[in-house]
Order: sequence, then structure tokens, then C-alpha cells
Amino acid sequence: MNTYGTRFKITTYGESHGLAVGAVIDGCPSGVKIDMDAIRADMSRRSQGAPRQEEDKIEWLSGVKDGVTLGTPIAFVIANSNARSKDYDVLEHCFRPGHADYTYFVKYGLRDHRGGGRASARETAARVVAGAIARQLLEGITIHAEVAETGEQKEGDTCGGVVRCRIEGLAAGVGEPLFGKLNAQLASAMMSIPSAIGFEMGAGFGAALMSGSEYIDRWLPGGGTVTNHCGGVQGGISNGMPVEFRVAFHPVATLPQAVECLCENGELKLLDIKGRHDLCQVQRTPVIVEAMAALCIVNYIL
Amino acid sequence: MNTYGTRFKITTYGESHGLAVGAVIDGCPSGVKIDMDAIRADMSRRSQGAPRQEEDKIEWLSGVKDGVTLGTPIAFVIANSNARSKDYDVLEHCFRPGHADYTYFVKYGLRDHRGGGRASARETAARVVAGAIARQLLEGITIHAEVAETGEQKEGDTCGGVVRCRIEGLAAGVGEPLFGKLNAQLASAMMSIPSAIGFEMGAGFGAALMSGSEYIDRWLPGGGTVTNHCGGVQGGISNGMPVEFRVAFHPVATLPQAVECLCENGELKLLDIKGRHDLCQVQRTPVIVEAMAALCIVNYIL
Amino acid sequence: MNTYGTRFKITTYGESHGLAVGAVIDGCPSGVKIDMDAIRADMSRRSQGAPRQEEDKIEWLSGVKDGVTLGTPIAFVIANSNARSKDYDVLEHCFRPGHADYTYFVKYGLRDHRGGGRASARETAARVVAGAIARQLLEGITIHAEVAETGEQKEGDTCGGVVRCRIEGLAAGVGEPLFGKLNAQLASAMMSIPSAIGFEMGAGFGAALMSGSEYIDRWLPGGGTVTNHCGGVQGGISNGMPVEFRVAFHPVATLPQAVECLCENGELKLLDIKGRHDLCQVQRTPVIVEAMAALCIVNYIL
Amino acid sequence: MNTYGTRFKITTYGESHGLAVGAVIDGCPSGVKIDMDAIRADMSRRSQGAPRQEEDKIEWLSGVKDGVTLGTPIAFVIANSNARSKDYDVLEHCFRPGHADYTYFVKYGLRDHRGGGRASARETAARVVAGAIARQLLEGITIHAEVAETGEQKEGDTCGGVVRCRIEGLAAGVGEPLFGKLNAQLASAMMSIPSAIGFEMGAGFGAALMSGSEYIDRWLPGGGTVTNHCGGVQGGISNGMPVEFRVAFHPVATLPQAVECLCENGELKLLDIKGRHDLCQVQRTPVIVEAMAALCIVNYIL
Repeated sequence: MNTYGTRFKITTYGESHGLAVGAVIDGCPSGVKIDMDAIRADMSRRSQGAPRQEEDKIEWLSGVKDGVTLGTPIAFVIANSNARSKDYDVLEHCFRPGHADYTYFVKYGLRDHRGGGRASARETAARVVAGAIARQLLEGITIHAEVAETGEQKEGDTCGGVVRCRIEGLAAGVGEPLFGKLNAQLASAMMSIPSAIGFEMGAGFGAALMSGSEYIDRWLPGGGTVTNHCGGVQGGISNGMPVEFRVAFHPVATLPQAVECLCENGELKLLDIKGRHDLCQVQRTPVIVEAMAALCIVNYIL
Repeated sequence: MNTYGTRFKITTYGESHGLAVGAVIDGCPSGVKIDMDAIRADMSRRSQGAPRQEEDKIEWLSGVKDGVTLGTPIAFVIANSNARSKDYDVLEHCFRPGHADYTYFVKYGLRDHRGGGRASARETAARVVAGAIARQLLEGITIHAEVAETGEQKEGDTCGGVVRCRIEGLAAGVGEPLFGKLNAQLASAMMSIPSAIGFEMGAGFGAALMSGSEYIDRWLPGGGTVTNHCGGVQGGISNGMPVEFRVAFHPVATLPQAVECLCENGELKLLDIKGRHDLCQVQRTPVIVEAMAALCIVNYIL
Repeated sequence: MNTYGTRFKITTYGESHGLAVGAVIDGCPSGVKIDMDAIRADMSRRSQGAPRQEEDKIEWLSGVKDGVTLGTPIAFVIANSNARSKDYDVLEHCFRPGHADYTYFVKYGLRDHRGGGRASARETAARVVAGAIARQLLEGITIHAEVAETGEQKEGDTCGGVVRCRIEGLAAGVGEPLFGKLNAQLASAMMSIPSAIGFEMGAGFGAALMSGSEYIDRWLPGGGTVTNHCGGVQGGISNGMPVEFRVAFHPVATLPQAVECLCENGELKLLDIKGRHDLCQVQRTPVIVEAMAALCIVNYIL
Repeated sequence: MNTYGTRFKITTYGESHGLAVGAVIDGCPSGVKIDMDAIRADMSRRSQGAPRQEEDKIEWLSGVKDGVTLGTPIAFVIANSNARSKDYDVLEHCFRPGHADYTYFVKYGLRDHRGGGRASARETAARVVAGAIARQLLEGITIHAEVAETGEQKEGDTCGGVVRCRIEGLAAGVGEPLFGKLNAQLASAMMSIPSAIGFEMGAGFGAALMSGSEYIDRWLPGGGTVTNHCGGVQGGISNGMPVEFRVAFHPVATLPQAVECLCENGELKLLDIKGRHDLCQVQRTPVIVEAMAALCIVNYIL
């Protein structure tokens, strides 16, 4: 289940504090000139202000020759150059609150406790690279995400926020009823991002309390609608209006203070984890939302 | 894309005003005694108060002998006994606002305009039957959904609402990182229900504005947490707490009044569609939420 | 695993002596006028000379309106009108040699012992219907199979044979390395037919003993090759020559004489099963080979 | 389509003359101590006597810590250390007979002409590594393949052969009707190996000419059969007897002599390609057959 997509498939790999993260992309058409600058730009947006700065140099192992895709699987590697695994030694037998430490341990019977292992946001580097390639295949379609709301930042605490995303230029008719609905696929793509805790199309939860006559998007003569409460999708299929959705992210779970951890013997222990973490990662999230949106859309378009 | 699931797979079929709706279930273990009363009870919850009352008799074509599953595909048919297709004649060349009429037309080039065709909630009958079977495989796990909020019902108008669902008894360790996360799969399962427009786990959108120290679920000695803001899932894997989520449904899009429709020639036309529709379908939705939750969970458990 | 295909997907259902067999086809484009005569013709080829004659009337439950596909799932049912289940009562606790009675029992813990249940060739009726529809989507491509060899028919015995198939009109470039190779997909499609026991492309097993200079298909100026030892596929991709393969079918396993069966208590018992079976089913097999070839090819073409 | 498997999934990547070949394995359980010596032994069998000798050092990027699997994706890289791409310059605009040069060009519009690109047997290195890991998960099951027949080797020519494989210790009940039949999955797994051109279970093509009474495998009291003409599979499900099959491989298509190639302008050109190739690769094939058999079986067992 580390594969996303049916036509443009990415399989990601790598733990936070292992040798590298990366992915194999299967299904990218041949003859595409990859815009390496665009990839670098997206990677910079992802790492801006991050406490753990890495070079994030991408090594291309296959599928690309002279910067052009061959139609064969594209494998790439991003070395983990700046991991400080020692910081996590105190966690060898204890589980942080608000993290996946415990659930990974239960599921796998063991874990790479250094820095969140596979559940770390480090893994999103591979998604951003793949998303940047996917985006180059979406001619005439723009995807733009930005922070819509941020929690108030208190001293010694962390925050989350809401990211809104808008896809323009997507023709009507994209989506696959019943279980490949565009809104449902966007939902699972977004909820797969670390810290995502809510998703809504268009007017979303607000729509639930509107009356029908307030809610329905009235037609304009010739097509298009006055409002876009549905977020550009009807019956799981795009209607030609911009696709609009919002994603809620909970606050960073690693507090800049000691927290009570649950240890394997069932006892609680006050621990101060020195790993380097954002206080408010939501600023770095829009590029990941865009990447997942691109990966979602490209699977319908190809 | 009319198939849901990887191990317990359902493929649904049927248009609202065709002969029948139904499904084939592939992957149900052999030797399961099907509780037909439980299926009937769920079907009743689904149709309670519906303006179009159907007998909803289920004909079992295969996979079941003497009420016990054979391990082979279970095919069933539910006849559409009470369709009044004439009501929809005015829609042959026009598209209602807030409906999938237009998007289906663009995608397929033609459509069965009678009663919403495949996009109709009629199709959920098949999901409820399949969900009721899935539920029988989930020993020790209870799934309960109920209406949490309803929009105010104005005279001559329709409303929507929010359904909350709670899954109890699910052991820790269920979920498949990264793209088979339990929360992501629940999101797409719920967003595949007609009219769903938002999804959130636990504290959801509210969590986005909490501070980290408010948000994180503090451990109890021995395991379990004081709060359940995360909704019982960490890193895409269940943590042993109840799985809690909410689904927003927009108001019924068919208003009990004439509405301006977009016609194929681009003109708007005021039409009064006489199809029988709920004014507030959200009361009938919890059993569908439960069915999709059961179908989602059973694919992890089998 | 009762689904075949990725784009034009069929999910078949039904036991030999249950109420019906049938399938749901998901992924058939909209707007296709179905040639019902062609379907009937293929169904006749399948049942010619069969000891169990059935009407094989096809009931279309969904996805088709006025003979034209809607783009939604096509569900159809073929009633089992002429089953004589009583014939099989002696088999309730015993397993025939050369049949799937035993393996189904081990796998599922129970079985529908009447007439082979799901393993019966009765199930291929659904494949032939679906294959006939698939074939209508393959413009310019012809698929022709015929019996190439038949075992000698001895009195009181049964026989098998070899079917050869030739697909003409398939453009070069069809196939998906590495695990979706055209030859590999044809192999699994053919080996899924009851009684299939061997598969070879082009010169097949004979090629294994040729020298390289005998084997390689020499180019003609302008393209095409002098011979077609490879069977029209290179590196898993069609090369524009006819696709040619052969399928070996073992003899009918039900002998017209009493045979020693293994019973659940481990003892052997001489039983005379009165079920109606072909003595040499290979004559009826070419249309099934064609159907599976069409289903295989259509998944690459759509 | 560079992914094999549903539960133990491998996605391979890499061109013959690119930087590296490798794979990502998704679905390997956690806590498995990988036997690196066993992997090296299989890799040696694969390269014995090969004209292009490579170090075949395996770099593990993720999923393994201290030699034990984490349950996360296992990514590995094998550098292409000894490619002599210059040898292939004459092929930049021409296609060898008996090779995938032409079909890749038609499908992808371009190709990496150096050494067969993705169609090269170099790619099987990744399969052998993955297969060796899969094999370690198959407790009590042994898989043994060997050369059964070889074409006569003439001076200045190449040959092919037949490999037979026997899987012992597989319990009865393994296989998934109808389209996941064990014999069908073995067929596609084997036909995905470069140069494979035929596949048969048990008595195979010979069975087609037997009479039914010769063919059927008679029961022994208590279970098991006297003969194993069916190759250990009935109705797509293992019956507890050894699983036996044979795979035909056509002769090496690269002759040690000049051959007429088809060039892009449609002309034939006599070319002498200096790439290093086996004269009879069939000796190196059994370990690949075993690897694919292990990958096939492990997907049923996990």
C-alpha cells in the first residue's frame, strides 16, 4: 500500500532516518522533457524554514535519458543527509503522544524509532518530486494551494491550520462513478498527507447547514454556475468550474517541551525529545497538497 | 470503477429507473450463515420515510446455498418496482442545477435521464445489503452512526446535515501506510456516498485551530488516551480507541419548487420536476454511512 | 478473484447448478450499439452438441437502454434452466478423480457438489457473452480460433485437443512490459479456461529446440517478417504480425464409466456419475478461446 | 505494469545500460531476518558463465535495519558496473531481428538502444533478489528448477531449451478461482521472463492427445494420486501433489554473426553487433524460473 495511482503510479520508499527516501514512477509517458527547475522550486517550497535542512539532491536511477522520459519506470533517490538519529535514543522503548510510534509498533512488532520512521513527513519529499512531474503532464491545468487559516501560535507550543486548494482549467467530465469519484479520490489523496484530519469540497461542512435553495449552484445561461458551493464536482465528475477544496491539518504533535510518553511496560515517563521539528508545519504544506492533487488528477487524464 | 474493496470486493450495478439494482460480492469467506433479518432491518432504516416506497425484495442468484455462503461470488438483485419514469420526461434535454445530470451527459455523451440514473441514491440499496453482510464478519466490532446536526427546515425548501459515526472494538494496528491509511480509506468511502461534501476524523476542522498542547491526546497509564481528538487513528493505523468521524451532507438538490434548468441549447428553462424526493435525506443516511464503514473495515480485517 | 481485466472488467458469478450464471461488465464505453445476434451466434457455438441443452436467454439488468450501452455497469443473468442436480447426489461426500471437487472442498470447507459448482464449464457462458461485447469494440481486429488437433476417440472414453488462435489486424505497439506483456496476459487468460493445460506462442515448444538462426524471424524490407515463429509478440509488445498461439486442453475428466472416487473418510469408492458431459469438449472450446482473447486485447486497446 | 503481485508486490526499474537496476518490494512482513548469503548464491547462479560479468553488489536503501525487515517498503539498487554501450552505436536507427528493438520503438516513440534497454535480461537481476527474499517466506516449501532439454549447439549459432520446475510442500487449497487460478498465475509469471515462449502444467501438450482414462490421475486410498498429469493443480487450486510445470525458451536472438536489421527508413542493413551475449542462456534460466515461482506462490500464502 505504498503505491498511489492506477495509470501514473508512484511507489514511495524510505524511512526518515534510513539511507534515503525516493520513489519509482510507473506509467509516465515517454518523450516528456522533465523541467528540473520546476522540481527544485517545489522542493524548496517544501523545505523552506524547516529546522532540518537537507540538500535534497535527486539522483535519477532509470527511466530518464538526457532529461527526457523513456516510458520505462522512473526511479529516483534522495539521500537523507542530515539525520540526527541520536536525538531519538530516549524513544527506543517509549511512545510519544500524538504520534504514530505506538500504532507502528503494534502493527509491525518493531519499528525504526529514529525520527518517526516511515510516518515522518520526510517521506513527502518523494511525493513532491513525483507531483512536480505529474504537474508537467497537466497542460492547461493549474493547481494552487495556500494557507487559509492558521492556529494562533502560543509561546512554547505548536499549531496547525487549514489549506485551501483550487484547480483551474480542468474540463468537465473528469471522474469515475461510483468508487472513483473525483471528490472521493481527492479526499483520500489529501487524508494520506501526514497530519491531515479533515477534508471538504466547496462549501463543505458549511453546506450541511444551508437550505437547499441557498446551496444549489444556479446555472448561468450558456453554462457555468453563479456560485460554486459544490466545489466543481457533481456526482463525482468535474463540471468545468474550478475544483475547490480545503484540508485541515492538526497541530504539530511534537511539542517544544517535555511530554509524558507511554513506555512498553505501561508506565508513563516525562521525556524531552530533541528531534528538530517545525512549530507550525502548515506553511510548508501547500506544495504537498498541490503534489497530491496533481497525482490524483493525472491518473484521470492520462 | 464500480468496484469497492480489495479483499471483500463489491461491484454494484443498476440505474435508478432501470430494471434493477444489485451487486456481486467477491471475497466473502465460505461457511458464513447470513442473517437475513439483519439485512432487512438495515434496508428498512434506509427506506424509512422515503417518498418512493419499494418492496426491496432481494433475490440471491449465486454464492449462497441454504442461507450459507459458498465462498464463490454472491450475486443479488433488487428489482426497481416503483419507478415513475414519466415524471422525468421534461428533463430529456435539460439539466437540473445541483445534480449530476450535466456531468454525466458530458462524460458519457448520453444518459438515462430518468431519476438520476446511476447517480441516484437508489444505488445505495446495494451497498446497504453488502454492508450488512460485511458487518456480520466483524466480530466484536460495532459501528454506530447517527445524525449529529440537521439544517433548519424551511417551508418549501430542503436541508442537509452532518452524520457522526463511531466504530468500537477495533483493535490497534489496523491500517496500511501510506496510501491505504485507515483515515484516508474511510474518507474516500464516505465521500463516495451521494451528497457527501465533507469528512473529518475526531476533532477535525476544529483541531486545525487548537494549539498542539490542547490537541495531543495524552496517554493514560497502561494505554489508551484521555481525549480522542485524533479520532482513533495515528499515522493511518488504528490505536485502539474508538474510531470517530463525521460526514457532512449537502441539502437535497431537488427543491419542491420550480427551478431554472440548463438545456442542451444553452438556454435556461424554469421546470417543475415531479419526481418523488426526500426533503431531508440525512435521516436515512446513517445506515449508509455504517454500511460503507463496514465495507471499509472488513477489507482490512479479512 | 472473479474479476478479469483492468479497463474492461468483467466479474462473473454463478454455480453450475444454482439459479443462474452471469456477469457485471464495468468499463464498457457508452453509446455502443450491442449486436445481439452476434452474441447469440457465439452462444450457439458454445453450446453446439452439448448434452445439457439450455435456452441461454440473456436478461439485461442494467447498463443498456434500447440496445445501446450507457457507460454504466452492464449486468446480465443467464438462468440455469436445465440442471439435473439429482445426478450428483452420490458425490455429496466423495471426490471424483481429475476434477476440482477435492480442491474446492479443501479451500472452502464446503462445496456445492452439484455439477462442479463454480469450477464447471457452465461459467464460461458469461465469458462468451462478455467476450462477444468486447469483440464489438475491436474495430479492424479479427480473432479466429479453431481445433488444431484432437485426441483419438476411443469407445467409452473421452478426449481433449489443441486449439489454435490467430488475431489479425492488431497494430504494432500493444503490450505492457514487464508484467503486463501481451503474451503473458494471453497465457493467463487461456489458462483460466477450464481444462487448459498448456499455452504456447508461435513456434512454442518447438522453438526451444531450434537453433537461433532457424528461429529468428527475418525482416522483410519495409517491415514485417518472413516467418512468425515468435507469434507476433516481441518483448511483450505486438509487432504488427498476426498474433498466433495454441492452447492445449486435457481430455474431459468425467468418463462415461464408473470411476474410483476418494471419499471424505479416505476410502475409495467406485461410482457411476450420471451427470451429462461431453465426451470431447474441445469442439466447443474455440469460441471460449476467442472470447478470452477479445477480453484480453480490449483491455489494452480501450 | 512494472509491478508484480498483490500482497508481496515488487516494482522493478532500470535499463540495461542505465545507471542501475533494482526494485521496491512492498508487503514483505516485518521481523524477517534476510539471508544475504542465499541472495548472493541465487545471484551467482544467475550470472554463471555470463559474458558480461558484473559485481552485482546490492545496496539496500530502505525497509531493512540490521538485516531485519521493518515491514516498510524494501528498496534496493544494483549498479550497472560493466556496460559497454559503445557496442550498440550501430543500432541507433536500426532494429535487430528477433528482438524487442522495433516494438519498443513503436510503443514509446523512442528507445534506449543500448543493450536492449528495459527488455534486456539484465532486469531479471532485480527479480532474482526479490525472489530470494520471497523464498525465505515459504517455510516448508521447496522450489527446484532445472534444464530439461537444450537445443543442439551448432558452431556460430545459438540455442534455447526447456526448463522444468517442481514445487514441493505446497499444501492443498492454494489458488483463487476463476481469474487467479494458480496455473494461470504461474503461466503469466513464467511468460514474463525474457525469451519464454511456452508453458505447460504436468503432462501439458502431451495430455491433449491422451484419452481421458489415460489422463485422469487416479486416487490413492487416503489421498494423493498415482500419477500427476495435472501438475498438482485442479480447478486452479493446488491439490497437495507437487506442482510441476515446464517453460520453453526460444534460442538467444542475438546471433554471433552479422544479421540483416530493419532500419527506420525501411531498408535492410547487414550489421554485426558486438554486444556480449550468451550463446545459450537457458543454463542461467532455472534460478529466474524459481524466483518467479516464489514470487507467484508468496502472493497466495501471505
